[in-house]
Amino acid sequence: MKSYINPDKNTLRTALERPALEQQDLSNLVKSVFDDVQQRGDAALRDYALKFDGFAPDELFVSEAEFSTATNELSQDLKNAIDKAHQNIKLFHQAQQENMQPVETSPGVTCWRKSVGIEKVGLYIPGGTAPLFSTVLMLGVPAIIAGCKEIVLATPANKEGKINPAILYTASVIGLKKVVKLGGIQAIAALSLGTETLPNVYKIFGPGNQYVTAAKQFAQSLGIAIDMPAGPSEVMVVADAAANPTFLAADLLSQAEHGADSQVVLVTDEPTLLEKVELEVNRQLAELPRKELATQSLESARLIAVDRSALIAIINAYAPEHLILNTQFNTELVDGIINAGSVFIGAYTPESLGDYASGTNHTLPTNGFARAYSGVSLDSFVRKITFQEVTPAGILDLGPTVEIMAAAEQLDAHKNAVTYRLKELKNNENI
Amino acid sequence: MKSYINPDKNTLRTALERPALEQQDLSNLVKSVFDDVQQRGDAALRDYALKFDGFAPDELFVSEAEFSTATNELSQDLKNAIDKAHQNIKLFHQAQQENMQPVETSPGVTCWRKSVGIEKVGLYIPGGTAPLFSTVLMLGVPAIIAGCKEIVLATPANKEGKINPAILYTASVIGLKKVVKLGGIQAIAALSLGTETLPNVYKIFGPGNQYVTAAKQFAQSLGIAIDMPAGPSEVMVVADAAANPTFLAADLLSQAEHGADSQVVLVTDEPTLLEKVELEVNRQLAELPRKELATQSLESARLIAVDRSALIAIINAYAPEHLILNTQFNTELVDGIINAGSVFIGAYTPESLGDYASGTNHTLPTNGFARAYSGVSLDSFVRKITFQEVTPAGILDLGPTVEIMAAAEQLDAHKNAVTYRLKELKNNENI
Repeated sequence: MKSYINPDKNTLRTALERPALEQQDLSNLVKSVFDDVQQRGDAALRDYALKFDGFAPDELFVSEAEFSTATNELSQDLKNAIDKAHQNIKLFHQAQQENMQPVETSPGVTCWRKSVGIEKVGLYIPGGTAPLFSTVLMLGVPAIIAGCKEIVLATPANKEGKINPAILYTASVIGLKKVVKLGGIQAIAALSLGTETLPNVYKIFGPGNQYVTAAKQFAQSLGIAIDMPAGPSEVMVVADAAANPTFLAADLLSQAEHGADSQVVLVTDEPTLLEKVELEVNRQLAELPRKELATQSLESARLIAVDRSALIAIINAYAPEHLILNTQFNTELVDGIINAGSVFIGAYTPESLGDYASGTNHTLPTNGFARAYSGVSLDSFVRKITFQEVTPAGILDLGPTVEIMAAAEQLDAHKNAVTYRLKELKNNENI
Repeated sequence: MKSYINPDKNTLRTALERPALEQQDLSNLVKSVFDDVQQRGDAALRDYALKFDGFAPDELFVSEAEFSTATNELSQDLKNAIDKAHQNIKLFHQAQQENMQPVETSPGVTCWRKSVGIEKVGLYIPGGTAPLFSTVLMLGVPAIIAGCKEIVLATPANKEGKINPAILYTASVIGLKKVVKLGGIQAIAALSLGTETLPNVYKIFGPGNQYVTAAKQFAQSLGIAIDMPAGPSEVMVVADAAANPTFLAADLLSQAEHGADSQVVLVTDEPTLLEKVELEVNRQLAELPRKELATQSLESARLIAVDRSALIAIINAYAPEHLILNTQFNTELVDGIINAGSVFIGAYTPESLGDYASGTNHTLPTNGFARAYSGVSLDSFVRKITFQEVTPAGILDLGPTVEIMAAAEQLDAHKNAVTYRLKELKNNENI
């Protein structure tokens, strides 16, 4: 952790620079896997699953029996917790449904739009030791509310061919039936291209390692939509003298444990807080199972004390994925926020609540992408198709406007499409 | 034009394949221009403007005097038409503003989201003979409604250093003040990177030739958002026996005149319509100034007669950018539409109306991208930031759920961020 008290402009800018990522160029590998999946389909998928994940699934799709076993294996406590989170996430994402009324923009000219679920979507859930069943909720629930007809969830099996029961239970309880035992590049290739047994999809969602990220980028270059660009997770915590250092330290660590490349930043108008928080971070860190990852991540942590008047500008310049506001002037800060992914307001609103169960989505723009991107929401799973209907009176009124504009753009056929109709209407009037 | 009457499944699939595009690999050129703009800033921009567009602007920004001259040069008729279109587009895009009420997902847990305009956006308007001032409306109006603080419009000047007055008038009348005389790769590089005089932006919108498209793709790889992937424009017209062949032909031609790679498709349940429409297309074509482009485009035109029951599946399989419904059973078709950009309903709703003035946006997903992408709307210019605020009672209720889930994902620090708060609240209760 590096501490800064009233840094000058340049120091502050450097302090808020995100750690540079070492990125391998995986494009040749990705292209070769995609080409092979295109040519050999399921056989290629099985070969890569064996090679990269240590298990070749005979049946790519999880069976009913496997879903049942998972449900039986899971503790009732965890099932109840997942169910409660599910309800909250469902409530918040249902409230995002748009019901736009038609607008009569000119007399006889009516325009509206309708949200329609993307027909086929793919959800990627990483494997590894920690089973990210919470991400199944965050992607699956809005996909189902959106009315996506074909939802394929891909997640790698372990070396015994098993998928974590929490992932299967969650998929099953929210209504996802198609879970395919595939991870990494081959999973993204399968979702992008389809095979004998797997449908291709139009948009791919979900987190992943550098292989998954590179494969999603390649899929995007083929015309398949993706949720958003990837980057390491991060949190900015804004605190004042009234904030509890224990809470602040816990919030910083909850982000730091994600991985060595996660960045955590504390900004405060109370200089004495920096030392208190650092002490508290070190105390809590000692007891964490994921201590090593967190320790690495803390190398790029920043504790910054500035004048209160500078806080909003710092938030917006950093554009944090997660922003925790733990001050006595939160409302003022909220009003000034332009760039952030998701905001957690008050001493009793840790990021963890939103990561799992408050109802908001946890798939959020990292790496400053909050400047241009929103987090995943119901919007991510629909297209808003526009419609318009014009009456004869409507085109008589608006047609001449369009004729003039089309002529000025030298698009005569555009003009004619109006002119022929106006002529017909005027002829009919004269009859 | 090729006609098909009741084609079999494979013939139909082939008929609906979009023409393959010849694409040059421009990535080396694009990268070299970006590198040079990064290093030399405005000086590089002037050099490329001279080299590619034949004019090096001393002042990159359009001056007040130039705006005034443009306003004086434009006919009152055209100004009135632009003003009317502006009003309609404004009305429809204002109606897209979201006012989502906070949701109490659990007792004491309140979540909401707020739309915030992207701080800095770039709008690209192509140069050339036809001045696309209508695109200034389609991108500028929602950007302004969204509250984007910095809106930079880039468009190339002609060899005399002039920008078409209709473009300048439109920019000025909707409230865009920053118009920069740049086109092509160098314009996109300037918007992406910024220079001494130009701000960089977070998202770039607008159509363009293959150079602009390649530059936008490169910008996207640098983390700058773009509106949507590019492709040739297209229309699908669905008609029945009651439709007027003159209108149908005019609608097909209004798309065909866009360019040699535009595709136009007519689908009908009335086989005799194919010949009537073809005759009418040839008649109208003869009188068009852009006859050559349209003739080339018509080589990939398709006229298809099928059973009425097959129409909806054909629409959704093709996923047209523009869809005109000119039948006596439009409502039924509308209900079945899953994949389309913008839909024009009825005999008196030609695509031209939406291209210019009905109020809907004309920046739409081409090339089948309507399967996963929406057209440009107010949504394209905002981020929806989520917020949540949890009371002590709220975390007492929901906290244990999060503790169980975080523990199951082996994220102990996530759990701790809740646990420390629950402990404090319980201690306080005991005092």
